Amino acid sequence: MATRIGIVGYGNLGRGVEISLALQPDMELAGVFTRRDPASVETADPATPVHALSELAAHAGELDVLILCGGSRSDLPVQSPELAASFSIVDSFDTHARIPEHFAAVDAAATAAGTTAVISTGWDPGLFSLNRVFAEAILPQGQTDTFWGRGLSQGHSDAVRRIDGVAGAVQYTIPAEAAVARVRAGERPALATREKHARECFVVLEPGASPEAVREAIVTMPDYFEPYDTTVTFITAEELARDHAGMPHGGFVIRSGESSPGTTQTIEYRLELSSNPEFTASVLVAYARAAARLAAAGQHGAKTPFDIAPGLLSPRTPEELRAELL
Amino acid sequence: MATRIGIVGYGNLGRGVEISLALQPDMELAGVFTRRDPASVETADPATPVHALSELAAHAGELDVLILCGGSRSDLPVQSPELAASFSIVDSFDTHARIPEHFAAVDAAATAAGTTAVISTGWDPGLFSLNRVFAEAILPQGQTDTFWGRGLSQGHSDAVRRIDGVAGAVQYTIPAEAAVARVRAGERPALATREKHARECFVVLEPGASPEAVREAIVTMPDYFEPYDTTVTFITAEELARDHAGMPHGGFVIRSGESSPGTTQTIEYRLELSSNPEFTASVLVAYARAAARLAAAGQHGAKTPFDIAPGLLSPRTPEELRAELL
Repeated sequence: MATRIGIVGYGNLGRGVEISLALQPDMELAGVFTRRDPASVETADPATPVHALSELAAHAGELDVLILCGGSRSDLPVQSPELAASFSIVDSFDTHARIPEHFAAVDAAATAAGTTAVISTGWDPGLFSLNRVFAEAILPQGQTDTFWGRGLSQGHSDAVRRIDGVAGAVQYTIPAEAAVARVRAGERPALATREKHARECFVVLEPGASPEAVREAIVTMPDYFEPYDTTVTFITAEELARDHAGMPHGGFVIRSGESSPGTTQTIEYRLELSSNPEFTASVLVAYARAAARLAAAGQHGAKTPFDIAPGLLSPRTPEELRAELL
Repeated sequence: MATRIGIVGYGNLGRGVEISLALQPDMELAGVFTRRDPASVETADPATPVHALSELAAHAGELDVLILCGGSRSDLPVQSPELAASFSIVDSFDTHARIPEHFAAVDAAATAAGTTAVISTGWDPGLFSLNRVFAEAILPQGQTDTFWGRGLSQGHSDAVRRIDGVAGAVQYTIPAEAAVARVRAGERPALATREKHARECFVVLEPGASPEAVREAIVTMPDYFEPYDTTVTFITAEELARDHAGMPHGGFVIRSGESSPGTTQTIEYRLELSSNPEFTASVLVAYARAAARLAAAGQHGAKTPFDIAPGLLSPRTPEELRAELL
């Protein structure tokens, strides 16, 4: 029987989950649940049922796992524990510093309710985290470097958009090629923030705004841009719409270590994503399959990707996996 | 308390395990067990105790997990089920086609005995297999390509050494750059065997042997060399010893898929290894930690890397992993 999924929240990520589910042979979308007026939500597939989030309880019998597609700042800290008290869930909580408290809150709710809650999956946290753990366990003597990009950063784009005189903007994070090359070569360099990533902004000015004032406001912004080499390019609203509508991202996790003195071993994991939200959604969907299996096996409480056997993500049986992919 | 490891078989892999254990904070080497005369075995650390394999039972109280370092052709099919009947074990059984029967034999022994037996770990099978499973589960619509090398192939080197007139030889497997580039670019090409890898042989001739006859015998050898572009370079015994004593290897697993029509997503996992046996040993050691934890948790029977939660490989606690690596 197919695993029946509910999507909670329908932005780019929720839409990505809807699209991803259609590719999975053993999963089906029961419906989208939204805080907006359901009639106002245009789903990728017009046949997808859309319900008010407040009606969730009435649909409990049709749902095996909820995939939470809200944001980490205000949605998930509330929704994940609350919904884990009634449903098995998967979320992509990505505020690294607050993961321990999020885990504790979700674990308490899920353990009490006998549900399974997979938190902090996606690609970082998620697949990149897994690669950090594998690589460090295997090469205890070494250094792990994570590079992000080339990719669109929503947080940095928003920061530029808040500047006076900016009508529109996108920001790309760029891994520094020279730094990546040194890490790949096994040098294990000590790299300053400025040496690892650069930031590239494409900005549409409001009529009459001063390009120099906007540029200065961007490149001197503490934390967001000051610690980086930042380039600012002014473009038209048409160019912004035409050339910067995609949401590419990706990056590298590279661990270089020595298994014995002078014997260098390098492990690299790389993602090159044309659509960050669709890829993140695809990871959430695979972990929803694992959540359903763990719940069915009575393994309740909060889990992270570190706690989940990789085979549980696959639609194939353990026998098929051993015969075909091992 | 440290996890106490016994090494069964002391060739390049066993030596690698000995070296790797010294880097792990929570594991210790109880001893090497060999079918040879123990007095004839020179360990990397002269203080390492070496015992006859026949004395294993007498040391049972000092051992938590055995790491089996024999070959897949004749050693492991016998040793893994036999030793799993008394000990938790880890092996690197790598005859892909025979994994199902190996799993069944080891599982029967381990289940009956209440031990935990991790089979077929290392990097392929092992880390590469894990990446095939993750990538396919996340991107169900796509193509996975595995490339090996640049690396020394023991099997192909042995095949060259068996040819009349050959005094010594090494063979390197080379991934074809053009093919890797096409796969990375998301083309998902249909590649013939000859297009994916080339083979490079360095050969020392016996006195009076015909270079042309040897070259012909190599490049026409069915299965091993005939399906590939093979180059043969004749060198001196001194050059062989000086330039080809290392055992480098590595490779790539690349999956390129579409999360929606036209939206390409690429996942790449790459290893660049100065020493294949030391790296494989490092993977076995991390899985020995997992085996000890699974055994202590009462999770008995045969397991593969697909069945093992990644966090179990790390010396860190789940709390530390969530706070520091997620």
